[in-house]
Amino acid sequence: MKYISLLIEYDGTRYLGWQSQTSGGTIQDILVEVISGITGEKVRLTGASRTDAGVHALGQMAVFGTESRLEPDVIMRAMNARLPRDIRVLGCRETDSSFHPRYYALKKSYFYLIAAGRSHSAFLYRYLWEVRADLDADSMTRAAAQLLGEHDFSSFMGSGCGSKTQVRTIYSLDVTRCGEMHFMSASFRGDFIRIRVEANAFLRHMVRNVVGTLVEVGKGKISDQAVTEILRSCDRKNAGPTAPARGLFLERITY
Amino acid sequence: MKYISLLIEYDGTRYLGWQSQTSGGTIQDILVEVISGITGEKVRLTGASRTDAGVHALGQMAVFGTESRLEPDVIMRAMNARLPRDIRVLGCRETDSSFHPRYYALKKSYFYLIAAGRSHSAFLYRYLWEVRADLDADSMTRAAAQLLGEHDFSSFMGSGCGSKTQVRTIYSLDVTRCGEMHFMSASFRGDFIRIRVEANAFLRHMVRNVVGTLVEVGKGKISDQAVTEILRSCDRKNAGPTAPARGLFLERITY
Repeated sequence: MKYISLLIEYDGTRYLGWQSQTSGGTIQDILVEVISGITGEKVRLTGASRTDAGVHALGQMAVFGTESRLEPDVIMRAMNARLPRDIRVLGCRETDSSFHPRYYALKKSYFYLIAAGRSHSAFLYRYLWEVRADLDADSMTRAAAQLLGEHDFSSFMGSGCGSKTQVRTIYSLDVTRCGEMHFMSASFRGDFIRIRVEANAFLRHMVRNVVGTLVEVGKGKISDQAVTEILRSCDRKNAGPTAPARGLFLERITY
Repeated sequence: MKYISLLIEYDGTRYLGWQSQTSGGTIQDILVEVISGITGEKVRLTGASRTDAGVHALGQMAVFGTESRLEPDVIMRAMNARLPRDIRVLGCRETDSSFHPRYYALKKSYFYLIAAGRSHSAFLYRYLWEVRADLDADSMTRAAAQLLGEHDFSSFMGSGCGSKTQVRTIYSLDVTRCGEMHFMSASFRGDFIRIRVEANAFLRHMVRNVVGTLVEVGKGKISDQAVTEILRSCDRKNAGPTAPARGLFLERITY
Protein backbone atom coordinates (compact mmCIF):
# COMPACT_ATOMS: atom_id res chain seq x y z
CA MET A 1 0.00 0.00 0.00
CA LYS A 2 1.32 3.45 -0.87
CA TYR A 3 -0.17 6.78 0.24
CA ILE A 4 -0.94 9.69 -2.05
CA SER A 5 -1.53 13.26 -0.92
CA LEU A 6 -3.58 15.67 -3.00
CA LEU A 7 -3.59 19.46 -3.06
CA ILE A 8 -7.09 20.45 -4.17
CA GLU A 9 -8.76 23.66 -5.34
CA TYR A 10 -12.53 23.97 -5.62
CA ASP A 11 -15.35 26.37 -6.24
CA GLY A 12 -17.79 25.30 -3.54
CA THR A 13 -20.83 27.07 -5.02
CA ARG A 14 -22.51 23.93 -6.37
CA TYR A 15 -21.61 21.55 -3.52
CA LEU A 16 -22.91 20.49 -0.13
CA GLY A 17 -19.47 20.94 1.38
CA TRP A 18 -16.47 18.67 1.80
CA GLN A 19 -17.67 15.94 4.12
CA SER A 20 -19.10 12.72 2.65
CA GLN A 21 -22.86 12.23 2.99
CA THR A 22 -24.94 9.11 2.45
CA SER A 23 -26.85 10.97 -0.29
CA GLY A 24 -23.50 11.66 -2.03
CA GLY A 25 -22.67 14.72 -4.10
CA THR A 26 -20.19 16.28 -1.69
CA ILE A 27 -16.67 17.16 -2.80
CA GLN A 28 -15.21 14.21 -0.86
CA ASP A 29 -17.78 11.85 -2.44
CA ILE A 30 -16.91 13.04 -5.94
CA LEU A 31 -13.17 12.70 -5.35
CA VAL A 32 -13.58 9.17 -3.93
CA GLU A 33 -15.69 8.15 -6.93
CA VAL A 34 -13.13 9.51 -9.40
CA ILE A 35 -10.13 7.93 -7.62
CA SER A 36 -11.93 4.58 -7.39
CA GLY A 37 -12.65 4.77 -11.12
CA ILE A 38 -8.93 5.24 -11.81
CA THR A 39 -7.42 2.70 -9.39
CA GLY A 40 -10.27 0.15 -9.46
CA GLU A 41 -10.22 -0.04 -5.66
CA LYS A 42 -12.51 1.01 -2.89
CA VAL A 43 -10.81 4.15 -1.60
CA ARG A 44 -10.76 5.90 1.77
CA LEU A 45 -9.94 9.59 1.43
CA THR A 46 -9.10 11.73 4.47
CA GLY A 47 -9.31 15.51 4.17
CA ALA A 48 -7.63 18.19 6.24
CA SER A 49 -10.59 20.50 6.74
CA ARG A 50 -14.35 19.98 6.56
CA THR A 51 -15.47 23.00 4.58
CA ASP A 52 -19.18 23.90 4.76
CA ALA A 53 -21.57 23.98 1.82
CA GLY A 54 -20.67 26.84 -0.52
CA VAL A 55 -17.18 27.39 0.89
CA HIS A 56 -14.31 27.50 -1.61
CA ALA A 57 -10.82 26.07 -1.24
CA LEU A 58 -7.53 27.16 -2.73
CA GLY A 59 -5.51 24.56 -0.85
CA GLN A 60 -7.47 21.68 0.64
CA MET A 61 -5.30 18.63 1.44
CA ALA A 62 -6.40 15.01 1.34
CA VAL A 63 -4.73 11.60 1.48
CA PHE A 64 -5.65 8.12 0.28
CA GLY A 65 -3.97 4.72 0.27
CA THR A 66 -3.74 2.62 -2.88
CA GLU A 67 -2.18 -0.55 -4.31
CA SER A 68 -2.08 1.12 -7.72
CA ARG A 69 1.29 1.38 -9.47
CA LEU A 70 0.28 4.57 -11.26
CA GLU A 71 2.68 7.47 -10.77
CA PRO A 72 1.30 10.52 -8.88
CA ASP A 73 1.55 12.66 -12.04
CA VAL A 74 -0.53 10.14 -13.96
CA ILE A 75 -3.11 9.99 -11.17
CA MET A 76 -3.35 13.81 -11.15
CA ARG A 77 -3.89 14.03 -14.91
CA ALA A 78 -6.45 11.22 -14.83
CA MET A 79 -8.30 12.88 -11.95
CA ASN A 80 -8.41 16.29 -13.64
CA ALA A 81 -9.72 14.67 -16.82
CA ARG A 82 -12.62 13.06 -14.91
CA LEU A 83 -13.43 15.62 -12.21
CA PRO A 84 -16.02 18.36 -12.75
CA ARG A 85 -14.35 21.59 -13.85
CA ASP A 86 -14.90 23.31 -10.51
CA ILE A 87 -12.78 20.76 -8.61
CA ARG A 88 -9.08 20.66 -9.61
CA VAL A 89 -6.12 18.69 -8.33
CA LEU A 90 -3.19 21.14 -8.21
CA GLY A 91 -0.64 18.71 -6.79
CA CYS A 92 -0.27 14.99 -6.17
CA ARG A 93 2.61 13.14 -4.55
CA GLU A 94 3.49 10.06 -2.59
CA THR A 95 3.52 10.53 1.17
CA ASP A 96 4.29 8.63 4.33
CA SER A 97 1.86 5.98 5.62
CA SER A 98 1.77 7.77 8.97
CA PHE A 99 0.80 11.15 7.51
CA HIS A 100 -2.68 12.32 8.53
CA PRO A 101 -3.73 15.58 6.85
CA ARG A 102 -5.83 16.79 9.80
CA TYR A 103 -3.79 15.64 12.81
CA TYR A 104 -0.50 16.71 11.25
CA ALA A 105 -1.68 20.20 10.33
CA LEU A 106 0.32 22.85 12.21
CA LYS A 107 -1.77 25.75 10.94
CA LYS A 108 -4.82 26.30 8.81
CA SER A 109 -5.82 29.59 7.25
CA TYR A 110 -9.15 30.82 5.94
CA PHE A 111 -10.15 34.17 4.56
CA TYR A 112 -13.39 35.98 3.90
CA LEU A 113 -13.78 38.39 1.05
CA ILE A 114 -16.39 40.96 2.01
CA ALA A 115 -17.71 43.61 -0.37
CA ALA A 116 -17.99 46.77 1.67
CA GLY A 117 -21.03 48.42 0.19
CA ARG A 118 -22.23 47.26 -3.18
CA SER A 119 -20.36 45.22 -5.75
CA HIS A 120 -21.70 45.75 -9.23
CA SER A 121 -20.07 42.78 -10.88
CA ALA A 122 -22.09 39.96 -12.40
CA PHE A 123 -18.97 37.78 -12.25
CA LEU A 124 -17.62 38.07 -8.69
CA TYR A 125 -20.77 37.48 -6.64
CA ARG A 126 -19.97 33.79 -5.99
CA TYR A 127 -16.80 34.87 -4.18
CA LEU A 128 -18.02 37.77 -2.07
CA TRP A 129 -20.10 38.27 1.01
CA GLU A 130 -21.90 41.51 0.23
CA VAL A 131 -22.61 43.38 3.44
CA ARG A 132 -25.11 46.20 2.90
CA ALA A 133 -23.46 48.58 5.36
CA ASP A 134 -20.31 50.61 5.73
CA LEU A 135 -17.88 48.73 7.93
CA ASP A 136 -15.40 50.40 10.27
CA ALA A 137 -12.26 48.38 9.58
CA ASP A 138 -10.33 50.06 12.42
CA SER A 139 -12.74 48.96 15.13
CA MET A 140 -12.83 45.48 13.54
CA THR A 141 -9.03 45.36 13.80
CA ARG A 142 -9.16 46.36 17.49
CA ALA A 143 -11.80 43.68 18.12
CA ALA A 144 -9.79 41.04 16.24
CA ALA A 145 -6.69 41.69 18.38
CA GLN A 146 -8.58 40.48 21.46
CA LEU A 147 -9.05 37.03 19.95
CA LEU A 148 -5.37 36.36 19.27
CA GLY A 149 -3.68 33.56 21.16
CA GLU A 150 -4.83 30.47 23.03
CA HIS A 151 -8.40 30.64 24.32
CA ASP A 152 -11.51 28.60 24.94
CA PHE A 153 -13.52 29.57 21.87
CA SER A 154 -16.88 28.14 23.04
CA SER A 155 -18.52 31.51 22.36
CA PHE A 156 -17.72 31.02 18.69
CA MET A 157 -18.53 27.30 18.39
CA GLY A 158 -21.44 26.10 16.27
CA SER A 159 -23.76 23.45 17.68
CA GLY A 160 -22.94 19.87 16.75
CA CYS A 161 -19.20 20.35 17.13
CA GLY A 162 -17.67 17.05 18.16
CA SER A 163 -14.42 18.39 19.63
CA LYS A 164 -13.29 17.26 23.09
CA THR A 165 -11.74 20.61 23.90
CA GLN A 166 -12.82 24.08 22.85
CA VAL A 167 -9.32 25.51 23.25
CA ARG A 168 -7.71 26.71 20.05
CA THR A 169 -4.85 29.08 19.21
CA ILE A 170 -5.36 31.91 16.74
CA TYR A 171 -1.97 32.95 15.38
CA SER A 172 -3.20 35.84 13.27
CA LEU A 173 -6.49 37.53 12.52
CA ASP A 174 -6.15 40.43 10.09
CA VAL A 175 -8.80 42.81 8.86
CA THR A 176 -7.60 44.53 5.70
CA ARG A 177 -9.35 47.06 3.51
CA CYS A 178 -8.18 46.40 -0.04
CA GLY A 179 -8.97 47.43 -3.58
CA GLU A 180 -7.43 44.32 -5.10
CA MET A 181 -7.51 40.68 -4.11
CA HIS A 182 -5.03 38.34 -5.77
CA PHE A 183 -5.52 34.62 -6.30
CA MET A 184 -3.23 32.29 -8.15
CA SER A 185 -5.15 32.52 -11.41
CA ALA A 186 -7.25 35.65 -10.94
CA SER A 187 -7.39 39.06 -9.31
CA PHE A 188 -10.52 40.90 -8.24
CA ARG A 189 -10.89 44.67 -8.10
CA GLY A 190 -13.44 46.45 -5.94
CA ASP A 191 -13.88 47.81 -2.44
CA PHE A 192 -13.18 44.80 -0.24
CA ILE A 193 -12.58 43.96 3.37
CA ARG A 194 -10.53 40.81 3.70
CA ILE A 195 -10.54 38.97 7.01
CA ARG A 196 -7.82 36.35 7.20
CA VAL A 197 -7.51 34.01 10.15
CA GLU A 198 -4.78 31.52 10.90
CA ALA A 199 -5.06 29.02 13.77
CA ASN A 200 -3.81 25.61 14.84
CA ALA A 201 -7.34 24.29 14.20
CA PHE A 202 -10.92 25.55 14.22
CA LEU A 203 -14.10 24.52 16.00
CA ARG A 204 -17.21 23.95 13.93
CA HIS A 205 -18.36 27.28 12.37
CA MET A 206 -15.66 29.10 14.34
CA VAL A 207 -14.43 31.10 11.34
CA ARG A 208 -17.97 32.06 10.37
CA ASN A 209 -18.92 33.01 13.94
CA VAL A 210 -15.75 35.06 14.51
CA VAL A 211 -16.27 36.90 11.22
CA GLY A 212 -20.00 37.35 11.87
CA THR A 213 -19.06 38.98 15.18
CA LEU A 214 -16.37 41.20 13.65
CA VAL A 215 -18.86 42.43 11.05
CA GLU A 216 -21.29 43.38 13.85
CA VAL A 217 -18.41 45.36 15.37
CA GLY A 218 -17.76 46.98 11.97
CA LYS A 219 -21.41 48.02 11.80
CA GLY A 220 -21.23 49.48 15.33
CA LYS A 221 -23.73 46.98 16.75
CA ILE A 222 -21.14 45.41 19.07
CA SER A 223 -18.43 47.61 20.61
CA ASP A 224 -14.87 46.53 19.90
CA GLN A 225 -14.08 46.38 23.65
CA ALA A 226 -16.94 43.91 24.16
CA VAL A 227 -15.15 41.13 22.31
CA THR A 228 -12.95 40.17 25.27
CA GLU A 229 -16.10 39.76 27.39
CA ILE A 230 -17.81 37.71 24.67
CA LEU A 231 -14.77 35.43 24.52
CA ARG A 232 -14.56 35.04 28.34
CA SER A 233 -18.28 34.28 28.68
CA CYS A 234 -17.85 30.98 26.77
CA ASP A 235 -21.48 31.45 25.69
CA ARG A 236 -22.39 31.33 22.01
CA LYS A 237 -25.41 33.59 22.64
CA ASN A 238 -23.14 36.57 23.31
CA ALA A 239 -21.31 36.50 19.99
CA GLY A 240 -22.63 37.77 16.66
CA PRO A 241 -24.50 35.74 14.04
CA THR A 242 -22.87 33.09 11.86
CA ALA A 243 -21.56 34.73 8.68
CA PRO A 244 -22.90 33.18 5.44
CA ALA A 245 -20.67 30.67 3.65
CA ARG A 246 -20.44 32.90 0.58
CA GLY A 247 -17.12 34.71 0.34
CA LEU A 248 -15.24 32.17 2.49
CA PHE A 249 -12.10 30.42 1.25
CA LEU A 250 -9.96 27.72 2.82
CA GLU A 251 -6.57 29.17 1.91
CA ARG A 252 -3.84 26.85 3.11
CA ILE A 253 -2.93 23.97 5.40
CA THR A 254 0.58 24.23 6.82
CA TYR A 255 2.45 21.09 7.91
CA MET B 1 -43.65 58.20 -22.63
CA LYS B 2 -39.93 58.47 -21.92
CA TYR B 3 -37.22 56.06 -23.04
CA ILE B 4 -34.60 54.51 -20.81
CA SER B 5 -31.39 52.86 -22.00
CA LEU B 6 -29.61 50.25 -19.92
CA LEU B 7 -25.98 49.13 -19.97
CA ILE B 8 -26.03 45.54 -18.76
CA GLU B 9 -23.40 43.01 -17.60
CA TYR B 10 -24.21 39.35 -17.19
CA ASP B 11 -22.71 35.96 -16.52
CA GLY B 12 -24.55 33.87 -19.11
CA THR B 13 -23.69 30.47 -17.57
CA ARG B 14 -27.14 29.83 -16.08
CA TYR B 15 -29.23 31.32 -18.89
CA LEU B 16 -30.77 30.30 -22.19
CA GLY B 17 -29.37 33.41 -23.83
CA TRP B 18 -30.69 36.93 -24.32
CA GLN B 19 -33.73 36.52 -26.53
CA SER B 20 -37.16 36.15 -24.92
CA GLN B 21 -38.74 32.70 -25.13
CA THR B 22 -42.32 31.62 -24.45
CA SER B 23 -41.01 29.35 -21.68
CA GLY B 24 -39.33 32.39 -20.07
CA GLY B 25 -36.08 32.33 -18.11
CA THR B 26 -33.92 34.18 -20.64
CA ILE B 27 -32.03 37.31 -19.68
CA GLN B 28 -34.48 39.51 -21.59
CA ASP B 29 -37.44 37.78 -19.87
CA ILE B 30 -35.93 38.36 -16.43
CA LEU B 31 -35.18 42.02 -17.14
CA VAL B 32 -38.71 42.63 -18.45
CA GLU B 33 -40.20 41.01 -15.36
CA VAL B 34 -38.06 43.11 -13.02
CA ILE B 35 -38.75 46.39 -14.86
CA SER B 36 -42.50 45.66 -14.94
CA GLY B 37 -42.38 45.02 -11.19
CA ILE B 38 -40.83 48.44 -10.66
CA THR B 39 -42.90 50.55 -13.05
CA GLY B 40 -46.16 48.59 -12.82
CA GLU B 41 -46.45 48.58 -16.60
CA LYS B 42 -46.24 46.03 -19.35
CA VAL B 43 -42.79 46.70 -20.75
CA ARG B 44 -41.22 46.14 -24.17
CA LEU B 45 -37.44 45.85 -23.95
CA THR B 46 -35.26 45.93 -27.07
CA GLY B 47 -31.70 44.63 -26.87
CA ALA B 48 -28.72 45.40 -29.07
CA SER B 49 -27.38 41.88 -29.52
CA ARG B 50 -28.97 38.44 -29.19
CA THR B 51 -26.35 36.54 -27.25
CA ASP B 52 -26.59 32.72 -27.31
CA ALA B 53 -27.12 30.49 -24.28
CA GLY B 54 -24.03 30.59 -22.06
CA VAL B 55 -22.54 33.72 -23.63
CA HIS B 56 -21.50 36.48 -21.21
CA ALA B 57 -21.85 40.23 -21.69
CA LEU B 58 -19.80 43.09 -20.36
CA GLY B 59 -21.76 45.74 -22.24
CA GLN B 60 -25.14 44.68 -23.57
CA MET B 61 -27.43 47.63 -24.38
CA ALA B 62 -31.22 47.65 -24.13
CA VAL B 63 -34.00 50.24 -24.25
CA PHE B 64 -37.55 50.41 -22.93
CA GLY B 65 -40.31 53.02 -22.89
CA THR B 66 -42.15 53.93 -19.69
CA GLU B 67 -44.66 56.40 -18.25
CA SER B 68 -42.91 56.10 -14.89
CA ARG B 69 -41.60 59.30 -13.28
CA LEU B 70 -38.79 57.43 -11.52
CA GLU B 71 -35.33 58.86 -12.18
CA PRO B 72 -32.90 56.60 -14.08
CA ASP B 73 -30.66 56.28 -10.99
CA VAL B 74 -33.62 55.09 -8.93
CA ILE B 75 -34.61 52.60 -11.63
CA MET B 76 -31.04 51.25 -11.73
CA ARG B 77 -30.84 50.76 -7.96
CA ALA B 78 -34.28 49.14 -7.87
CA MET B 79 -33.33 46.80 -10.73
CA ASN B 80 -30.04 45.74 -9.13
CA ALA B 81 -31.86 45.06 -5.85
CA ARG B 82 -34.31 42.70 -7.62
CA LEU B 83 -32.21 41.11 -10.35
CA PRO B 84 -30.32 37.84 -9.79
CA ARG B 85 -26.72 38.53 -8.82
CA ASP B 86 -25.36 37.39 -12.20
CA ILE B 87 -27.23 40.13 -14.10
CA ARG B 88 -26.21 43.72 -13.23
CA VAL B 89 -27.27 47.09 -14.59
CA LEU B 90 -24.10 49.17 -14.87
CA GLY B 91 -25.70 52.27 -16.33
CA CYS B 92 -29.16 53.70 -16.87
CA ARG B 93 -30.16 56.97 -18.55
CA GLU B 94 -32.93 58.66 -20.46
CA THR B 95 -32.59 58.43 -24.22
CA ASP B 96 -34.31 59.64 -27.36
CA SER B 97 -37.59 58.05 -28.47
CA SER B 98 -36.04 57.34 -31.87
CA PHE B 99 -33.03 55.47 -30.45
CA HIS B 100 -32.95 51.77 -31.38
CA PRO B 101 -30.08 49.86 -29.74
CA ARG B 102 -29.66 47.43 -32.64
CA TYR B 103 -30.27 49.64 -35.70
CA TYR B 104 -28.22 52.51 -34.28
CA ALA B 105 -25.20 50.37 -33.42
CA LEU B 106 -22.16 51.46 -35.43
CA LYS B 107 -19.95 48.65 -34.16
CA LYS B 108 -20.24 45.62 -31.94
CA SER B 109 -17.32 43.74 -30.44
CA TYR B 110 -17.08 40.25 -29.04
CA PHE B 111 -14.12 38.34 -27.72
CA TYR B 112 -13.31 34.74 -26.98
CA LEU B 113 -11.03 33.72 -24.18
CA ILE B 114 -9.37 30.44 -25.11
CA ALA B 115 -7.14 28.47 -22.77
CA ALA B 116 -4.27 27.21 -24.88
CA GLY B 117 -3.51 23.87 -23.32
CA ARG B 118 -4.89 23.14 -19.90
CA SER B 119 -6.18 25.61 -17.35
CA HIS B 120 -5.96 24.27 -13.84
CA SER B 121 -8.26 26.75 -12.16
CA ALA B 122 -11.50 25.69 -10.48
CA PHE B 123 -12.67 29.29 -10.69
CA LEU B 124 -12.12 30.41 -14.30
CA TYR B 125 -13.68 27.53 -16.21
CA ARG B 126 -16.98 29.37 -16.81
CA TYR B 127 -15.10 32.02 -18.76
CA LEU B 128 -12.75 29.94 -20.90
CA TRP B 129 -13.00 27.72 -23.91
CA GLU B 130 -10.40 25.07 -23.15
CA VAL B 131 -8.92 23.75 -26.37
CA ARG B 132 -6.95 20.56 -25.83
CA ALA B 133 -4.29 21.37 -28.39
CA ASP B 134 -1.44 23.78 -28.95
CA LEU B 135 -2.60 26.57 -31.20
CA ASP B 136 -0.37 28.39 -33.67
CA ALA B 137 -1.35 32.01 -33.02
CA ASP B 138 0.72 33.27 -35.98
CA SER B 139 -1.15 31.23 -38.55
CA MET B 140 -4.44 32.19 -36.89
CA THR B 141 -3.45 35.86 -37.28
CA ARG B 142 -2.66 35.33 -40.99
CA ALA B 143 -6.02 33.59 -41.46
CA ALA B 144 -7.88 36.33 -39.57
CA ALA B 145 -6.44 39.05 -41.84
CA GLN B 146 -8.24 37.50 -44.82
CA LEU B 147 -11.64 38.11 -43.20
CA LEU B 148 -11.18 41.85 -42.64
CA GLY B 149 -13.42 44.24 -44.53
CA GLU B 150 -16.79 44.01 -46.26
CA HIS B 151 -17.71 40.52 -47.42
CA ASP B 152 -20.60 38.13 -47.87
CA PHE B 153 -20.12 35.98 -44.75
CA SER B 154 -22.53 33.17 -45.77
CA SER B 155 -19.76 30.63 -45.11
CA PHE B 156 -19.86 31.63 -41.45
CA MET B 157 -23.63 31.94 -41.03
CA GLY B 158 -25.58 29.60 -38.78
CA SER B 159 -28.84 28.11 -40.04
CA GLY B 160 -31.98 29.98 -39.05
CA CYS B 161 -30.42 33.40 -39.57
CA GLY B 162 -33.20 35.82 -40.55
CA SER B 163 -31.00 38.48 -42.20
CA LYS B 164 -31.87 39.77 -45.67
CA THR B 165 -28.25 40.27 -46.63
CA GLN B 166 -25.21 38.25 -45.62
CA VAL B 167 -22.83 41.16 -46.18
CA ARG B 168 -21.11 42.44 -43.06
CA THR B 169 -17.97 44.48 -42.40
CA ILE B 170 -15.33 43.23 -39.99
CA TYR B 171 -13.27 46.21 -38.79
CA SER B 172 -10.81 44.25 -36.71
CA LEU B 173 -10.13 40.61 -35.89
CA ASP B 174 -7.17 40.16 -33.55
CA VAL B 175 -5.62 36.95 -32.28
CA THR B 176 -3.52 37.70 -29.21
CA ARG B 177 -1.54 35.34 -27.02
CA CYS B 178 -1.69 36.75 -23.51
CA GLY B 179 -0.80 35.79 -19.95
CA GLU B 180 -3.28 38.20 -18.43
CA MET B 181 -6.81 39.17 -19.32
CA HIS B 182 -8.26 42.27 -17.68
CA PHE B 183 -11.93 42.90 -17.02
CA MET B 184 -13.42 45.86 -15.20
CA SER B 185 -13.65 44.02 -11.88
CA ALA B 186 -11.29 41.08 -12.36
CA SER B 187 -8.13 39.90 -14.08
CA PHE B 188 -7.33 36.34 -15.08
CA ARG B 189 -3.85 34.87 -15.30
CA GLY B 190 -2.98 31.86 -17.42
CA ASP B 191 -1.95 30.94 -20.94
CA PHE B 192 -4.69 32.44 -23.08
CA ILE B 193 -5.44 33.15 -26.69
CA ARG B 194 -7.86 36.02 -27.01
CA ILE B 195 -9.74 36.48 -30.27
CA ARG B 196 -11.46 39.84 -30.50
CA VAL B 197 -13.71 40.76 -33.39
CA GLU B 198 -15.32 44.07 -34.17
CA ALA B 199 -17.89 44.46 -36.96
CA ASN B 200 -20.82 46.63 -37.98
CA ALA B 201 -23.09 43.66 -37.18
CA PHE B 202 -22.94 39.87 -37.10
CA LEU B 203 -24.92 37.09 -38.75
CA ARG B 204 -26.30 34.33 -36.55
CA HIS B 205 -23.41 32.30 -35.04
CA MET B 206 -20.94 34.29 -37.16
CA VAL B 207 -18.55 34.98 -34.25
CA ARG B 208 -18.63 31.33 -33.17
CA ASN B 209 -18.14 30.05 -36.73
CA VAL B 210 -15.28 32.45 -37.47
CA VAL B 211 -13.55 31.50 -34.21
CA GLY B 212 -14.23 27.79 -34.73
CA THR B 213 -12.53 28.12 -38.13
CA LEU B 214 -9.56 30.08 -36.76
CA VAL B 215 -9.01 27.41 -34.09
CA GLU B 216 -8.93 24.73 -36.82
CA VAL B 217 -6.25 26.85 -38.51
CA GLY B 218 -4.40 27.10 -35.18
CA LYS B 219 -4.46 23.30 -34.92
CA GLY B 220 -3.15 22.95 -38.46
CA LYS B 221 -6.33 21.27 -39.73
CA ILE B 222 -7.13 24.13 -42.10
CA SER B 223 -4.30 26.05 -43.77
CA ASP B 224 -4.27 29.77 -43.19
CA GLN B 225 -4.31 30.47 -46.94
CA ALA B 226 -7.52 28.44 -47.30
CA VAL B 227 -9.60 31.02 -45.43
CA THR B 228 -9.96 33.32 -48.44
CA GLU B 229 -11.36 30.37 -50.44
CA ILE B 230 -13.72 29.43 -47.61
CA LEU B 231 -14.99 33.01 -47.51
CA ARG B 232 -15.46 33.21 -51.31
CA SER B 233 -17.28 29.89 -51.50
CA CYS B 234 -20.24 31.30 -49.52
CA ASP B 235 -20.81 27.74 -48.33
CA ARG B 236 -21.07 27.00 -44.61
CA LYS B 237 -19.81 23.42 -45.20
CA ASN B 238 -16.34 24.70 -46.03
CA ALA B 239 -15.73 26.56 -42.77
CA GLY B 240 -14.79 25.03 -39.43
CA PRO B 241 -17.17 23.90 -36.69
CA THR B 242 -19.14 26.30 -34.49
CA ALA B 243 -17.09 27.15 -31.42
CA PRO B 244 -18.83 26.42 -28.10
CA ALA B 245 -20.52 29.33 -26.33
CA ARG B 246 -18.21 28.99 -23.32
CA GLY B 247 -15.50 31.65 -23.25
CA LEU B 248 -17.46 34.12 -25.40
CA PHE B 249 -18.15 37.67 -24.23
CA LEU B 250 -20.16 40.46 -25.82
CA GLU B 251 -17.76 43.30 -25.08
CA ARG B 252 -19.22 46.56 -26.30
CA ILE B 253 -21.78 48.20 -28.56
CA THR B 254 -20.56 51.45 -30.12
CA TYR B 255 -23.04 54.16 -31.18
